[in-house]
Amino acid sequence: MQPGGSAGTVRTRQYRFSPPDGFLLENGESLREITLAYETYGRLNPDKTNAILIFHALSGDAHAAGFHPGDRKPGWWDAMIGPGKAFDTDKYFIVCSNVLGGCKGSTGPSSINPKTQRPYGLSFPMISIGDMAACQKQLVDHLGIGKLLSIAGGSMGGMQVLAWLTKYPERIRSAIPISTAMRHSPQQIAFNEVGRQAIMADRDWRSGNYYGGHPPARGLSLARMIGHITYMSDQSMETKFGRQRKEKFKPFKFGADFEVEGYLHYHGQNFVKRFDANSYLYITRAMDNFDAAEGKPLQEVLKGVEARVLVIAFKSDWLYPAYQTKEIVKACKLSGVEASCCEIDSTYGHDAFLLEVEEETNLIAHFLKKALNGHEVTGEYEI
Amino acid sequence: MQPGGSAGTVRTRQYRFSPPDGFLLENGESLREITLAYETYGRLNPDKTNAILIFHALSGDAHAAGFHPGDRKPGWWDAMIGPGKAFDTDKYFIVCSNVLGGCKGSTGPSSINPKTQRPYGLSFPMISIGDMAACQKQLVDHLGIGKLLSIAGGSMGGMQVLAWLTKYPERIRSAIPISTAMRHSPQQIAFNEVGRQAIMADRDWRSGNYYGGHPPARGLSLARMIGHITYMSDQSMETKFGRQRKEKFKPFKFGADFEVEGYLHYHGQNFVKRFDANSYLYITRAMDNFDAAEGKPLQEVLKGVEARVLVIAFKSDWLYPAYQTKEIVKACKLSGVEASCCEIDSTYGHDAFLLEVEEETNLIAHFLKKALNGHEVTGEYEI
Repeated sequence: MQPGGSAGTVRTRQYRFSPPDGFLLENGESLREITLAYETYGRLNPDKTNAILIFHALSGDAHAAGFHPGDRKPGWWDAMIGPGKAFDTDKYFIVCSNVLGGCKGSTGPSSINPKTQRPYGLSFPMISIGDMAACQKQLVDHLGIGKLLSIAGGSMGGMQVLAWLTKYPERIRSAIPISTAMRHSPQQIAFNEVGRQAIMADRDWRSGNYYGGHPPARGLSLARMIGHITYMSDQSMETKFGRQRKEKFKPFKFGADFEVEGYLHYHGQNFVKRFDANSYLYITRAMDNFDAAEGKPLQEVLKGVEARVLVIAFKSDWLYPAYQTKEIVKACKLSGVEASCCEIDSTYGHDAFLLEVEEETNLIAHFLKKALNGHEVTGEYEI
Repeated sequence: MQPGGSAGTVRTRQYRFSPPDGFLLENGESLREITLAYETYGRLNPDKTNAILIFHALSGDAHAAGFHPGDRKPGWWDAMIGPGKAFDTDKYFIVCSNVLGGCKGSTGPSSINPKTQRPYGLSFPMISIGDMAACQKQLVDHLGIGKLLSIAGGSMGGMQVLAWLTKYPERIRSAIPISTAMRHSPQQIAFNEVGRQAIMADRDWRSGNYYGGHPPARGLSLARMIGHITYMSDQSMETKFGRQRKEKFKPFKFGADFEVEGYLHYHGQNFVKRFDANSYLYITRAMDNFDAAEGKPLQEVLKGVEARVLVIAFKSDWLYPAYQTKEIVKACKLSGVEASCCEIDSTYGHDAFLLEVEEETNLIAHFLKKALNGHEVTGEYEI
């Protein structure tokens, strides 16, 4: 077990905002009102200088740490967030926000469209990673935080880190993008597209109008199965499953025979209980469209950024290969942004950012301490 | 263009056999009669010592070279088979056989079950790579060939090479497994399983009883799209597509926007026209179940094999990574089988065995010449 304690019993809150002219999205459309689900752990200090914003990945939510009342399983990054952990709640005030477009308490395609009083479905506007960041900024404003000590996230969470770094550099003192890319490669787009096609090929999808009826369970389950293959490495699958067969007698010719098949089925079916298929479409599309530099060289966009950056990658991650991380670091260096990079040895594949707790903790704990101390000594970053 | 001429106009033949007690399969079931589609190129010499058997991959067929009357596209390995090519039809007699379980003229789940006079569907027995090899041996007997000069194939074709090497070593003088594995890793099983699940999730699949109605087109198309991602490399996708968008205006939110998406859609939809979904289930299952050594160390099974082996792998092939090829070579060396191995530098991924014609030609042409000369000098291998 990792050292450190639990963030304890926590609950998800919601922040609702409705700007007078609606909330303008990057594609030109707007949303009349937006709700963001979020959780916080630890306490904001009187100077409001110890706040860290955590971003989740594709299928994550605001519940990053601690336990919901009655739950046995803690939040998705509990190993990293809590007293004495990497994101030490004795020192820092941690905020984790669900994303716009999601389905875990935030406005998304399954939300009620205030104009029609029916779920949006595909009438929900196309959203971007930048839109997610813009909503999170509203939340940070609402919490009264001028400048965040740090922002951190893996995978799609890392994309949000990059969006903040380019859109709101004056609002952060440091940034930790993990296992991510400044834009998706065609291979990454391709895997997402097959997932989307699986959902839309399911007759229960009904062009996105399935709310109140059967969700496209088989399609969403398939999308998740494809995802799971890409989250693991060849080696981690070999270690976990090998060619082990399931023991139970399976009368059906094409049922799950190998352990690895059963694992995929289980996780596919489980995912359907907790995730909305349309959210999967919108969020993966936002990831594929994301380009941190918006077509320009990233070093140009990063010029003048004063935040320190710590980039983390993992060796066996073939979905977000280390060369993509290195491109981010290179752009930081070229633009004069202070960046350090660590490629952690791991066999866990893309999942490593959730599992390689010890090394990640060392890196992040030291990095945050420096960022905090830098502030205490100079005070130069306070707004 | 590659050097060498065309195998010319060719046609697919069929060989039908029905042993008195049926054809016994490895799982204990039997088939009353079996048809194998095959093609031949070049001429069998009077000594019958120049015959080479070619095996195709998952979605291939007997049409490996030359042109069918009226066709613009030649067979799937035309770049490698013809006068002056790697498999030189001026010197060698080339046979390519479709596999048992297939849908391109050979007995498979879409064939008529002689007992019921209706298509087998899922009543077709489970088949193995070994069963495919056993059928091919019947064909080789029928052609009057005692000992094959060589056998060659990539991917699943390479599995058939390995099956011949362990089951019928006395019938071959040499063997060329390419881009293959002696058994599937859990990752390879997982990708196949997601393809199978995509087919079976399609309501048109109807438990395999779709013949005469709509085939499970969307499911099969999805399976093919997943396959295509695994056949290319990250780099070859980057070179071919980058983040290019399709130019046509797409009114549908989740239509193909990036070039890579359009490519996958096109190939998915095209595949449905030429392949049977149930064959996809049976053949991928045969691949997943395949274990060249049947649970034993491969070197034990290969002991005493006199055939020379040339193993070929390609650097960017992440579906059948080079380490799997090396395991085959190691087993050959440990068992005293004369084996050489070449890992060809390529960025094409698994598709490289179809595309890296020049290097592959050099390797194979020399290897075959040696094998043929070895025979001419000593005659020791003739039956």
